[in-house]
Amino acid sequence: MRTRQMGGGDRRMLVVVCDKGEEAVAALTGAVREHGIRAAQVTAVGGFGQARLGFFDRDARDYLPIPVGEQVEVLSLVGDVAEQDDQPVVHLHAVLGRRDGSTIGGHLLRGEVWPTLEVIVAEVGPELTKRIDPQTGLALLAP
Amino acid sequence: MRTRQMGGGDRRMLVVVCDKGEEAVAALTGAVREHGIRAAQVTAVGGFGQARLGFFDRDARDYLPIPVGEQVEVLSLVGDVAEQDDQPVVHLHAVLGRRDGSTIGGHLLRGEVWPTLEVIVAEVGPELTKRIDPQTGLALLAP
Amino acid sequence: MRTRQMGGGDRRMLVVVCDKGEEAVAALTGAVREHGIRAAQVTAVGGFGQARLGFFDRDARDYLPIPVGEQVEVLSLVGDVAEQDDQPVVHLHAVLGRRDGSTIGGHLLRGEVWPTLEVIVAEVGPELTKRIDPQTGLALLAP
Repeated sequence: MRTRQMGGGDRRMLVVVCDKGEEAVAALTGAVREHGIRAAQVTAVGGFGQARLGFFDRDARDYLPIPVGEQVEVLSLVGDVAEQDDQPVVHLHAVLGRRDGSTIGGHLLRGEVWPTLEVIVAEVGPELTKRIDPQTGLALLAP
Repeated sequence: MRTRQMGGGDRRMLVVVCDKGEEAVAALTGAVREHGIRAAQVTAVGGFGQARLGFFDRDARDYLPIPVGEQVEVLSLVGDVAEQDDQPVVHLHAVLGRRDGSTIGGHLLRGEVWPTLEVIVAEVGPELTKRIDPQTGLALLAP
Repeated sequence: MRTRQMGGGDRRMLVVVCDKGEEAVAALTGAVREHGIRAAQVTAVGGFGQARLGFFDRDARDYLPIPVGEQVEVLSLVGDVAEQDDQPVVHLHAVLGRRDGSTIGGHLLRGEVWPTLEVIVAEVGPELTKRIDPQTGLALLAP
Protein backbone atom coordinates (compact mmCIF):
# COMPACT_ATOMS: atom_id res chain seq x y z
CA MET A 1 0.00 0.00 0.00
CA ARG A 2 1.26 3.41 -0.92
CA THR A 3 -0.39 6.63 0.23
CA ARG A 4 -0.11 10.27 -0.68
CA GLN A 5 -1.67 13.03 1.37
CA MET A 6 -2.45 16.33 -0.31
CA GLY A 7 -3.85 19.58 1.07
CA GLY A 8 -4.15 20.51 4.73
CA GLY A 9 -6.45 21.40 7.59
CA ASP A 10 -9.41 19.03 7.92
CA ARG A 11 -10.08 18.83 4.18
CA ARG A 12 -7.13 16.69 3.14
CA MET A 13 -7.15 14.34 0.17
CA LEU A 14 -5.54 10.96 0.75
CA VAL A 15 -4.79 8.80 -2.28
CA VAL A 16 -4.33 5.15 -1.32
CA VAL A 17 -3.12 2.56 -3.82
CA CYS A 18 -3.28 -1.07 -2.70
CA ASP A 19 -0.87 -3.57 -4.21
CA LYS A 20 -1.42 -7.08 -5.51
CA GLY A 21 -2.49 -9.49 -2.76
CA GLU A 22 -3.32 -6.86 -0.13
CA GLU A 23 -6.64 -7.06 1.72
CA ALA A 24 -8.49 -3.84 0.94
CA VAL A 25 -10.50 -3.25 4.15
CA ALA A 26 -7.49 -3.73 6.43
CA ALA A 27 -5.23 -1.65 4.17
CA LEU A 28 -7.67 1.26 4.00
CA THR A 29 -8.39 1.15 7.73
CA GLY A 30 -4.65 1.24 8.37
CA ALA A 31 -4.16 4.16 6.00
CA VAL A 32 -6.85 6.39 7.52
CA ARG A 33 -5.68 5.62 11.07
CA GLU A 34 -2.05 6.34 10.17
CA HIS A 35 -3.03 9.72 8.72
CA GLY A 36 -5.49 10.55 11.52
CA ILE A 37 -8.46 10.91 9.16
CA ARG A 38 -11.64 10.69 11.26
CA ALA A 39 -14.34 11.77 8.77
CA ALA A 40 -14.22 11.18 5.02
CA GLN A 41 -15.91 10.14 1.80
CA VAL A 42 -14.31 7.17 -0.01
CA THR A 43 -14.48 6.19 -3.69
CA ALA A 44 -12.34 3.59 -5.47
CA VAL A 45 -11.92 1.49 -8.61
CA GLY A 46 -9.58 -1.42 -9.40
CA GLY A 47 -9.75 -5.20 -9.26
CA PHE A 48 -10.03 -8.08 -6.78
CA GLY A 49 -8.67 -11.61 -7.21
CA GLN A 50 -11.37 -12.71 -4.78
CA ALA A 51 -13.64 -11.08 -2.22
CA ARG A 52 -16.25 -11.59 0.45
CA LEU A 53 -19.32 -9.40 0.45
CA GLY A 54 -22.19 -9.25 2.95
CA PHE A 55 -25.94 -8.71 2.98
CA PHE A 56 -27.37 -7.50 6.29
CA ASP A 57 -30.12 -9.84 7.45
CA ARG A 58 -32.74 -8.25 9.70
CA ASP A 59 -33.53 -11.42 11.65
CA ALA A 60 -29.97 -12.68 12.07
CA ARG A 61 -28.86 -9.10 12.83
CA ASP A 62 -25.67 -9.94 10.98
CA TYR A 63 -24.16 -9.99 7.51
CA LEU A 64 -24.89 -13.08 5.41
CA PRO A 65 -21.69 -13.83 3.50
CA ILE A 66 -21.59 -13.61 -0.31
CA PRO A 67 -18.34 -15.22 -1.45
CA VAL A 68 -16.76 -14.09 -4.73
CA GLY A 69 -14.22 -16.68 -5.86
CA GLU A 70 -12.98 -15.25 -9.14
CA GLN A 71 -11.16 -12.26 -10.60
CA VAL A 72 -13.52 -9.27 -10.76
CA GLU A 73 -13.33 -5.62 -11.68
CA VAL A 74 -14.10 -3.31 -8.75
CA LEU A 75 -16.71 -1.26 -10.60
CA SER A 76 -17.41 0.95 -7.63
CA LEU A 77 -16.35 1.09 -4.02
CA VAL A 78 -18.25 3.84 -2.21
CA GLY A 79 -18.43 4.64 1.47
CA ASP A 80 -17.24 6.67 4.38
CA VAL A 81 -14.87 6.95 7.33
CA ALA A 82 -16.10 7.72 10.85
CA GLU A 83 -15.05 6.97 14.42
CA GLN A 84 -16.32 4.08 16.47
CA ASP A 85 -14.94 3.67 20.00
CA ASP A 86 -12.44 6.46 19.26
CA GLN A 87 -10.95 4.63 16.27
CA PRO A 88 -11.55 5.48 12.59
CA VAL A 89 -13.40 2.72 10.74
CA VAL A 90 -14.33 2.39 7.07
CA HIS A 91 -17.81 1.50 5.76
CA LEU A 92 -17.63 0.38 2.14
CA HIS A 93 -20.13 -1.04 -0.34
CA ALA A 94 -18.85 -2.67 -3.51
CA VAL A 95 -20.18 -3.44 -6.98
CA LEU A 96 -17.98 -6.03 -8.69
CA GLY A 97 -17.96 -7.01 -12.39
CA ARG A 98 -17.34 -10.46 -13.83
CA ARG A 99 -15.73 -11.41 -17.14
CA ASP A 100 -19.10 -11.30 -18.96
CA GLY A 101 -20.04 -7.92 -17.48
CA SER A 102 -22.51 -9.36 -14.96
CA THR A 103 -22.29 -7.76 -11.52
CA ILE A 104 -22.40 -8.78 -7.87
CA GLY A 105 -22.44 -6.47 -4.90
CA GLY A 106 -22.71 -6.05 -1.16
CA HIS A 107 -21.14 -4.64 1.97
CA LEU A 108 -17.39 -5.18 1.58
CA LEU A 109 -16.18 -7.64 4.22
CA ARG A 110 -12.85 -8.36 2.51
CA GLY A 111 -11.29 -7.97 -0.92
CA GLU A 112 -7.96 -9.34 -2.11
CA VAL A 113 -6.57 -6.72 -4.47
CA TRP A 114 -5.38 -7.65 -7.98
CA PRO A 115 -3.85 -5.88 -9.82
CA THR A 116 -4.55 -2.56 -8.07
CA LEU A 117 -7.08 -0.60 -6.07
CA GLU A 118 -7.05 3.17 -6.56
CA VAL A 119 -8.76 4.84 -3.61
CA ILE A 120 -9.54 8.50 -3.03
CA VAL A 121 -10.29 9.46 0.57
CA ALA A 122 -11.76 12.98 0.72
CA GLU A 123 -11.72 14.28 4.28
CA VAL A 124 -15.02 16.02 5.09
CA GLY A 125 -14.19 17.62 8.44
CA PRO A 126 -12.65 17.12 11.87
CA GLU A 127 -14.68 14.08 12.94
CA LEU A 128 -17.81 11.99 12.55
CA THR A 129 -18.92 9.38 15.06
CA LYS A 130 -20.85 6.12 14.93
CA ARG A 131 -23.17 4.83 17.60
CA ILE A 132 -24.59 1.34 18.13
CA ASP A 133 -28.22 1.07 16.98
CA PRO A 134 -29.98 -1.14 19.55
CA GLN A 135 -32.49 -2.53 17.02
CA THR A 136 -29.92 -3.89 14.58
CA GLY A 137 -26.70 -4.02 16.58
CA LEU A 138 -25.04 -2.03 13.78
CA ALA A 139 -22.80 0.99 14.36
CA LEU A 140 -24.60 3.75 12.46
CA LEU A 141 -23.35 7.22 11.60
CA ALA A 142 -24.57 9.73 14.21
CA PRO A 143 -23.75 13.20 12.83
CA MET B 1 -32.91 12.72 9.17
CA ARG B 2 -29.94 14.26 10.87
CA THR B 3 -27.52 16.59 9.12
CA ARG B 4 -24.12 18.03 9.91
CA GLN B 5 -22.57 20.83 7.91
CA MET B 6 -18.80 21.21 7.93
CA GLY B 7 -16.53 23.81 6.33
CA GLY B 8 -17.62 27.13 4.88
CA GLY B 9 -17.83 29.33 1.80
CA ASP B 10 -19.22 27.50 -1.23
CA ARG B 11 -17.29 24.29 -0.62
CA ARG B 12 -19.20 22.98 2.39
CA MET B 13 -19.58 19.31 3.23
CA LEU B 14 -23.02 18.22 4.35
CA VAL B 15 -23.37 14.80 5.95
CA VAL B 16 -26.98 13.57 5.85
CA VAL B 17 -28.07 10.43 7.68
CA CYS B 18 -31.59 9.18 6.94
CA ASP B 19 -33.41 7.18 9.57
CA LYS B 20 -35.49 4.01 9.30
CA GLY B 21 -38.64 4.52 7.22
CA GLU B 22 -37.67 7.90 5.71
CA GLU B 23 -38.01 8.40 1.96
CA ALA B 24 -34.53 9.18 0.66
CA VAL B 25 -35.24 11.54 -2.27
CA ALA B 26 -37.54 13.78 -0.22
CA ALA B 27 -35.19 13.76 2.78
CA LEU B 28 -32.15 14.70 0.70
CA THR B 29 -34.02 17.36 -1.23
CA GLY B 30 -35.16 18.84 2.07
CA ALA B 31 -31.64 18.76 3.50
CA VAL B 32 -29.98 20.58 0.58
CA ARG B 33 -32.75 23.19 0.46
CA GLU B 34 -32.55 23.81 4.21
CA HIS B 35 -28.79 24.37 3.97
CA GLY B 36 -29.00 26.41 0.76
CA ILE B 37 -26.76 24.05 -1.21
CA ARG B 38 -27.30 24.79 -4.91
CA ALA B 39 -24.48 22.81 -6.55
CA ALA B 40 -23.02 19.55 -5.22
CA GLN B 41 -21.78 16.03 -5.80
CA VAL B 42 -23.64 13.31 -3.87
CA THR B 43 -22.48 9.81 -2.83
CA ALA B 44 -24.18 7.47 -0.38
CA VAL B 45 -24.36 3.90 0.96
CA GLY B 46 -26.87 2.19 3.25
CA GLY B 47 -30.00 0.10 2.83
CA PHE B 48 -33.58 0.34 1.56
CA GLY B 49 -36.57 -1.69 2.77
CA GLN B 50 -38.12 -1.08 -0.64
CA ALA B 51 -37.58 1.30 -3.53
CA ARG B 52 -38.79 2.46 -6.91
CA LEU B 53 -36.24 2.96 -9.69
CA GLY B 54 -36.75 4.29 -13.20
CA PHE B 55 -35.44 3.73 -16.71
CA PHE B 56 -35.84 6.65 -19.09
CA ASP B 57 -37.71 5.56 -22.20
CA ARG B 58 -36.98 7.58 -25.34
CA ASP B 59 -40.39 7.09 -26.92
CA ALA B 60 -42.48 7.59 -23.79
CA ARG B 61 -40.22 10.51 -22.79
CA ASP B 62 -40.70 9.35 -19.22
CA TYR B 63 -39.27 6.96 -16.62
CA LEU B 64 -40.55 3.39 -16.79
CA PRO B 65 -40.92 2.24 -13.19
CA ILE B 66 -38.75 -0.60 -11.80
CA PRO B 67 -40.26 -1.61 -8.45
CA VAL B 68 -37.99 -3.16 -5.80
CA GLY B 69 -40.11 -4.90 -3.18
CA GLU B 70 -37.52 -6.34 -0.84
CA GLN B 71 -34.75 -5.32 1.53
CA VAL B 72 -31.65 -4.32 -0.46
CA GLU B 73 -28.22 -2.90 0.24
CA VAL B 74 -27.70 0.53 -1.33
CA LEU B 75 -24.42 -0.39 -3.05
CA SER B 76 -24.01 3.03 -4.57
CA LEU B 77 -26.02 6.19 -4.79
CA VAL B 78 -24.27 8.71 -7.01
CA GLY B 79 -25.52 12.00 -8.36
CA ASP B 80 -25.64 15.73 -8.11
CA VAL B 81 -27.53 18.77 -6.86
CA ALA B 82 -28.45 21.68 -9.14
CA GLU B 83 -31.17 24.29 -9.40
CA GLN B 84 -34.32 23.95 -11.45
CA ASP B 85 -36.84 26.82 -11.37
CA ASP B 86 -34.74 28.44 -8.60
CA GLN B 87 -35.04 25.41 -6.30
CA PRO B 88 -32.27 22.88 -5.57
CA VAL B 89 -33.13 19.39 -6.85
CA VAL B 90 -31.24 16.10 -6.52
CA HIS B 91 -30.47 13.74 -9.40
CA LEU B 92 -29.54 10.30 -8.09
CA HIS B 93 -28.81 6.94 -9.69
CA ALA B 94 -28.78 3.82 -7.51
CA VAL B 95 -27.28 0.34 -7.65
CA LEU B 96 -29.02 -1.95 -5.16
CA GLY B 97 -27.90 -5.39 -3.95
CA ARG B 98 -30.12 -8.34 -3.10
CA ARG B 99 -29.55 -11.09 -0.54
CA ASP B 100 -27.70 -13.27 -3.09
CA GLY B 101 -25.49 -10.41 -4.27
CA SER B 102 -27.39 -9.85 -7.52
CA THR B 103 -27.94 -6.20 -8.36
CA ILE B 104 -30.64 -3.97 -9.75
CA GLY B 105 -30.31 -0.32 -10.64
CA GLY B 106 -31.85 2.79 -12.12
CA HIS B 107 -32.72 6.43 -11.62
CA LEU B 108 -33.86 6.73 -7.99
CA LEU B 109 -37.53 7.68 -7.87
CA ARG B 110 -38.00 6.77 -4.21
CA GLY B 111 -36.26 4.66 -1.57
CA GLU B 112 -37.54 3.78 1.87
CA VAL B 113 -34.49 3.77 4.13
CA TRP B 114 -33.71 0.78 6.37
CA PRO B 115 -31.65 0.73 8.52
CA THR B 116 -29.71 3.82 7.47
CA LEU B 117 -28.54 5.90 4.53
CA GLU B 118 -25.21 7.67 4.95
CA VAL B 119 -24.97 10.51 2.43
CA ILE B 120 -22.10 12.87 1.72
CA VAL B 121 -23.03 16.06 -0.14
CA ALA B 122 -19.87 17.81 -1.36
CA GLU B 123 -20.69 21.36 -2.46
CA VAL B 124 -18.90 22.19 -5.71
CA GLY B 125 -19.54 25.93 -5.97
CA PRO B 126 -22.11 28.70 -5.69
CA GLU B 127 -24.69 27.30 -8.14
CA LEU B 128 -25.44 25.05 -11.08
CA THR B 129 -28.62 25.25 -13.12
CA LYS B 130 -30.78 22.80 -15.08
CA ARG B 131 -32.68 23.59 -18.22
CA ILE B 132 -35.48 21.65 -19.95
CA ASP B 133 -34.22 19.71 -22.98
CA PRO B 134 -36.98 20.03 -25.62
CA GLN B 135 -36.18 16.64 -27.22
CA THR B 136 -36.63 14.57 -24.05
CA GLY B 137 -38.54 16.87 -21.72
CA LEU B 138 -35.84 16.21 -19.09
CA ALA B 139 -34.21 18.94 -16.99
CA LEU B 140 -30.53 18.59 -17.90
CA LEU B 141 -27.53 20.22 -16.24
CA ALA B 142 -26.56 23.38 -18.12
CA PRO B 143 -23.19 24.49 -16.69
CA MET C 1 -19.50 19.11 -24.10
CA ARG C 2 -19.85 22.06 -21.78
CA THR C 3 -17.59 22.61 -18.79
CA ARG C 4 -17.63 24.89 -15.79
CA GLN C 5 -14.66 25.29 -13.49
CA MET C 6 -15.25 26.45 -9.93
CA GLY C 7 -12.82 27.25 -7.11
CA GLY C 8 -9.08 27.73 -7.46
CA GLY C 9 -5.63 26.54 -6.52
CA ASP C 10 -5.20 22.77 -6.92
CA ARG C 11 -8.62 21.88 -5.49
CA ARG C 12 -10.81 23.04 -8.36
CA MET C 13 -14.16 21.50 -9.20
CA LEU C 14 -14.83 20.91 -12.88
CA VAL C 15 -18.38 20.12 -13.94
CA VAL C 16 -18.48 18.45 -17.37
CA VAL C 17 -21.75 17.82 -19.17
CA CYS C 18 -21.55 15.67 -22.31
CA ASP C 19 -24.14 16.13 -25.02
CA LYS C 20 -26.10 13.60 -27.08
CA GLY C 21 -23.84 11.51 -29.30
CA GLU C 22 -20.53 12.49 -27.69
CA GLU C 23 -18.06 9.76 -26.72
CA ALA C 24 -17.56 10.04 -22.97
CA VAL C 25 -13.93 8.92 -22.53
CA ALA C 26 -12.62 11.23 -25.25
CA ALA C 27 -14.77 14.14 -24.05
CA LEU C 28 -13.63 13.80 -20.44
CA THR C 29 -9.98 13.35 -21.40
CA GLY C 30 -10.25 16.50 -23.50
CA ALA C 31 -11.89 18.44 -20.66
CA VAL C 32 -9.27 17.60 -18.02
CA ARG C 33 -6.40 18.33 -20.45
CA GLU C 34 -7.92 21.66 -21.48
CA HIS C 35 -8.24 22.70 -17.82
CA GLY C 36 -4.82 21.32 -16.83
CA ILE C 37 -6.24 18.97 -14.20
CA ARG C 38 -3.57 16.37 -13.42
CA ALA C 39 -5.00 14.64 -10.32
CA ALA C 40 -8.71 14.18 -9.59
CA GLN C 41 -11.59 12.01 -8.44
CA VAL C 42 -14.38 11.51 -10.99
CA THR C 43 -18.06 10.60 -10.44
CA ALA C 44 -20.87 10.77 -12.99
CA VAL C 45 -24.44 9.73 -13.82
CA GLY C 46 -26.43 9.93 -17.03
CA GLY C 47 -27.18 7.65 -19.96
CA PHE C 48 -25.49 5.91 -22.89
CA GLY C 49 -27.08 4.99 -26.22
CA GLN C 50 -24.43 2.28 -26.51
CA ALA C 51 -21.09 1.51 -24.90
CA ARG C 52 -18.07 -0.78 -24.85
CA LEU C 53 -16.82 -2.03 -21.49
CA GLY C 54 -13.76 -4.15 -20.72
CA PHE C 55 -12.70 -6.91 -18.33
CA PHE C 56 -8.97 -7.19 -17.73
CA ASP C 57 -7.80 -10.71 -18.54
CA ARG C 58 -4.67 -11.82 -16.68
CA ASP C 59 -3.42 -14.15 -19.41
CA ALA C 60 -4.19 -11.94 -22.39
CA ARG C 61 -2.84 -8.93 -20.42
CA ASP C 62 -5.55 -6.93 -22.12
CA TYR C 63 -9.20 -5.92 -21.78
CA LEU C 64 -11.73 -8.41 -23.13
CA PRO C 65 -14.48 -6.33 -24.76
CA ILE C 66 -18.03 -6.34 -23.35
CA PRO C 67 -20.27 -4.66 -25.95
CA VAL C 68 -23.44 -2.91 -24.78
CA GLY C 69 -25.75 -2.37 -27.75
CA GLU C 70 -28.77 -0.74 -26.18
CA GLN C 71 -29.83 2.39 -24.31
CA VAL C 72 -28.69 2.14 -20.66
CA GLU C 73 -28.72 4.36 -17.60
CA VAL C 74 -25.22 5.21 -16.37
CA LEU C 75 -25.84 4.13 -12.78
CA SER C 76 -22.33 4.98 -11.67
CA LEU C 77 -19.17 6.14 -13.33
CA VAL C 78 -16.35 6.26 -10.79
CA GLY C 79 -12.65 6.79 -11.31
CA ASP C 80 -9.70 9.09 -11.31
CA VAL C 81 -7.43 11.35 -13.33
CA ALA C 82 -3.62 10.99 -13.27
CA GLU C 83 -0.71 11.64 -15.60
CA GLN C 84 0.82 9.06 -17.90
CA ASP C 85 3.72 10.15 -20.12
CA ASP C 86 3.10 13.76 -18.98
CA GLN C 87 -0.51 13.76 -20.20
CA PRO C 88 -3.61 13.53 -17.98
CA VAL C 89 -5.59 10.33 -18.57
CA VAL C 90 -8.92 9.18 -17.09
CA HIS C 91 -9.53 5.74 -15.53
CA LEU C 92 -13.25 5.04 -15.29
CA HIS C 93 -15.34 2.05 -14.26
CA ALA C 94 -19.03 1.98 -15.14
CA VAL C 95 -22.15 0.23 -13.89
CA LEU C 96 -24.92 0.47 -16.49
CA GLY C 97 -28.63 -0.29 -16.03
CA ARG C 98 -30.97 -1.85 -18.58
CA ARG C 99 -34.70 -1.26 -19.07
CA ASP C 100 -35.58 -4.07 -16.62
CA GLY C 101 -33.15 -2.82 -13.94
CA SER C 102 -30.53 -5.51 -14.62
CA THR C 103 -26.98 -4.20 -14.64
CA ILE C 104 -23.78 -4.68 -16.61
CA GLY C 105 -20.40 -3.22 -15.77
CA GLY C 106 -16.71 -2.98 -16.54
CA HIS C 107 -13.81 -0.72 -17.31
CA LEU C 108 -15.20 2.02 -19.58
CA LEU C 109 -13.61 1.77 -23.03
CA ARG C 110 -16.17 4.00 -24.75
CA GLY C 111 -19.67 5.28 -24.10
CA GLU C 112 -21.91 7.15 -26.52
CA VAL C 113 -23.81 9.65 -24.41
CA TRP C 114 -27.60 9.91 -24.61
CA PRO C 115 -29.30 12.06 -23.37
CA THR C 116 -26.65 13.48 -21.02
CA LEU C 117 -23.70 12.64 -18.83
CA GLU C 118 -23.25 14.80 -15.72
CA VAL C 119 -19.67 14.51 -14.50
CA ILE C 120 -18.04 16.02 -11.43
CA VAL C 121 -14.24 16.15 -11.49
CA ALA C 122 -12.90 16.98 -8.02
CA GLU C 123 -9.24 17.95 -8.22
CA VAL C 124 -7.28 16.29 -5.40
CA GLY C 125 -3.93 18.08 -5.69
CA PRO C 126 -1.20 19.26 -8.04
CA GLU C 127 -0.44 15.92 -9.73
CA LEU C 128 -0.57 12.13 -9.59
CA THR C 129 1.42 9.88 -11.89
CA LYS C 130 0.95 6.43 -13.40
CA ARG C 131 3.68 3.96 -14.11
CA ILE C 132 3.64 0.82 -16.27
CA ASP C 133 3.38 -2.36 -14.19
CA PRO C 134 5.66 -4.92 -15.88
CA GLN C 135 3.54 -7.92 -14.79
CA THR C 136 0.30 -6.73 -16.37
CA GLY C 137 1.39 -4.06 -18.81
CA LEU C 138 -1.15 -1.71 -17.20
CA ALA C 139 -0.41 1.88 -16.21
CA LEU C 140 -1.08 1.87 -12.46
CA LEU C 141 -1.34 4.83 -10.11
CA ALA C 142 2.03 5.41 -8.38
CA PRO C 143 1.38 7.98 -5.63
